[in-house]
Amino acid sequence: MAPKYQMVADSLRTDILDGVYQKRMLLPTEQLLCQQFQVSRQTVRQALALLVSEGLIERRQGSGSHIRDRSKPAPMPHRSIAVITTYISDYIFPSILREVENVLSDHNSAPLLFATQNQVSNERKVLNTLLDLTSLDGVLVEGTKTGLPNPNLDLYRRLIDRGVPLVFMNGNYPELTDSLSVLDDNATGGRMLVDYLHQKGHQRIAGIFKNDDIQGHQRYAGYAGALRTLGLPFEDQQVFWYSTEAKESLFLDGTGVKYLEQVLPGYTAVVCYNDEIASRLVAQLVKRGVSIPEDMAVVSFDNSQYSEMTTPRITSLSHGTHNVGRMAAELLMHLFEGVPCQSQVAPWTLVQKESS
Amino acid sequence: MAPKYQMVADSLRTDILDGVYQKRMLLPTEQLLCQQFQVSRQTVRQALALLVSEGLIERRQGSGSHIRDRSKPAPMPHRSIAVITTYISDYIFPSILREVENVLSDHNSAPLLFATQNQVSNERKVLNTLLDLTSLDGVLVEGTKTGLPNPNLDLYRRLIDRGVPLVFMNGNYPELTDSLSVLDDNATGGRMLVDYLHQKGHQRIAGIFKNDDIQGHQRYAGYAGALRTLGLPFEDQQVFWYSTEAKESLFLDGTGVKYLEQVLPGYTAVVCYNDEIASRLVAQLVKRGVSIPEDMAVVSFDNSQYSEMTTPRITSLSHGTHNVGRMAAELLMHLFEGVPCQSQVAPWTLVQKESS
Repeated sequence: MAPKYQMVADSLRTDILDGVYQKRMLLPTEQLLCQQFQVSRQTVRQALALLVSEGLIERRQGSGSHIRDRSKPAPMPHRSIAVITTYISDYIFPSILREVENVLSDHNSAPLLFATQNQVSNERKVLNTLLDLTSLDGVLVEGTKTGLPNPNLDLYRRLIDRGVPLVFMNGNYPELTDSLSVLDDNATGGRMLVDYLHQKGHQRIAGIFKNDDIQGHQRYAGYAGALRTLGLPFEDQQVFWYSTEAKESLFLDGTGVKYLEQVLPGYTAVVCYNDEIASRLVAQLVKRGVSIPEDMAVVSFDNSQYSEMTTPRITSLSHGTHNVGRMAAELLMHLFEGVPCQSQVAPWTLVQKESS
Repeated sequence: MAPKYQMVADSLRTDILDGVYQKRMLLPTEQLLCQQFQVSRQTVRQALALLVSEGLIERRQGSGSHIRDRSKPAPMPHRSIAVITTYISDYIFPSILREVENVLSDHNSAPLLFATQNQVSNERKVLNTLLDLTSLDGVLVEGTKTGLPNPNLDLYRRLIDRGVPLVFMNGNYPELTDSLSVLDDNATGGRMLVDYLHQKGHQRIAGIFKNDDIQGHQRYAGYAGALRTLGLPFEDQQVFWYSTEAKESLFLDGTGVKYLEQVLPGYTAVVCYNDEIASRLVAQLVKRGVSIPEDMAVVSFDNSQYSEMTTPRITSLSHGTHNVGRMAAELLMHLFEGVPCQSQVAPWTLVQKESS
């Protein structure tokens, strides 16, 4: 059976060519298409992206999917671009994908979106799907579990061998030495947060990091390096490592609760891997009567909605006007245009709030 | 205050030079020295190693620590060699250290032993101690938490800059590109265990690996690669990752119990990171009425006592006559002798027992 998005695209294509939408020259909204085909919004978007890449429709922000007048030549080449991220609708991913879509839209393209849920088994399915596409011009991809050996490098290499340009976002695979990437400046970020806390008078600074993503390793490396440079205490037990699979029950049982109740009381500040974790940590600390920032300062990465919605709001590192999604999409466009390119890092600025 | 082993050595040195042991030309046994100085056996051994390196005593297997006749030249140069492992008295480490001691003893040297408990904070203290030694000819070292960025590479680089030869055992740091190592053939081992289980008819093969040591990453890479090559099922959830800190409570709470009770029942075999973990897993499975190997085959790495003492005995990969400790010590001796050397891997052979 063909993938769902392809079945949706097939149906819409037939209708377009049969003149079903001739009157308004406009497709139904994404929401209506979801209802009509009983599929998710992601599937509808993939179907629409395919039709864009075929030159059948144009997507304009705010006014929907327009049927193209096929008597006129397409103003720019339509490119079929796959975008693979770990998540689509969670955390910072909507803002990354929005920027990717904007850049692609400016270049008359639209992304085919895929999410791996940070599972290498899903990543493998997505890569196999890409290898089966008749047309694929480029891939923007966030690596999956980049802190562990990746079992799918064979498929990435097949894409590379076919000459499909890849740009990695957020996390990459060092084994694919020639691939370009746009990454957070993770190690510098870790150092910045420790330096900031130290300037506020903190000496005993704990850390919580993700162990299966390269971002977690790099943020930890910056954190540990700064403690060393400043001569601050550093024992392994002050660092709590968690995995993708453990995230959901973090601080609710086992070693997480032990860390919260037996280790953290010996520290006055904690550097968190990201706002999502910081927000959960704050909730559990508040529940236990810990005053933030008086008893425990909490700082974090990403300056996302999570850091705004938590009480107290969380001091966090921001990319400001730099958006990894936009930077990566622009890098890919430059590759298409033959502009010489190199990998980039997105710098951080600290946004101080009430948690520190 | 000087380290304890140095205080013990100072006291013994004074006594030796004062002729206290002139009659028998023999120091008290290690056990008596422990009692006399109220210190651990490790401290006594470090003190004796220091005296050996100073040419004051000779240690002969079976007959103790002899006072050297200092009117005669030492038959071979005494070398001061530090040996750093994660553990000393646990698991496979006694057998590794015994072989190291034998090789060094054949070369008229004795090791200064240090254990890090796989804590980078301890590793840092040990490295600082080594940098303070007035005499250090070589280091055999098992890296600490080699699956994560290491915050102590600056101290390793200082040792290297001083011209002290390093040989890594079991785990190394890829960043120290020029260092020699003797490692297990981990990826091949992972593949061997999956191939073996597949030949026995297993299709659904789970895996349990350590996430903060490079051995865990490499064994997983071999395991995942073999599943892929054989076309066997592979979902992220079938792999359970644990850390050094989580080891003690493994399978006793939280995600470990969930894995045992909700994931493993969907599989017929499991590849374990090592015999210690395999042994704990078997105990928990048996407690839950799981028949081994009928309901669940269990295989593992290291073929240690743990695999022999468990009921049923555990099928495990063995190094046979290859001992990583001996290979690493011999490599270091060759370096001293100016023999051209390169890194080595210790091959595995499968020892089938009742668990599969």
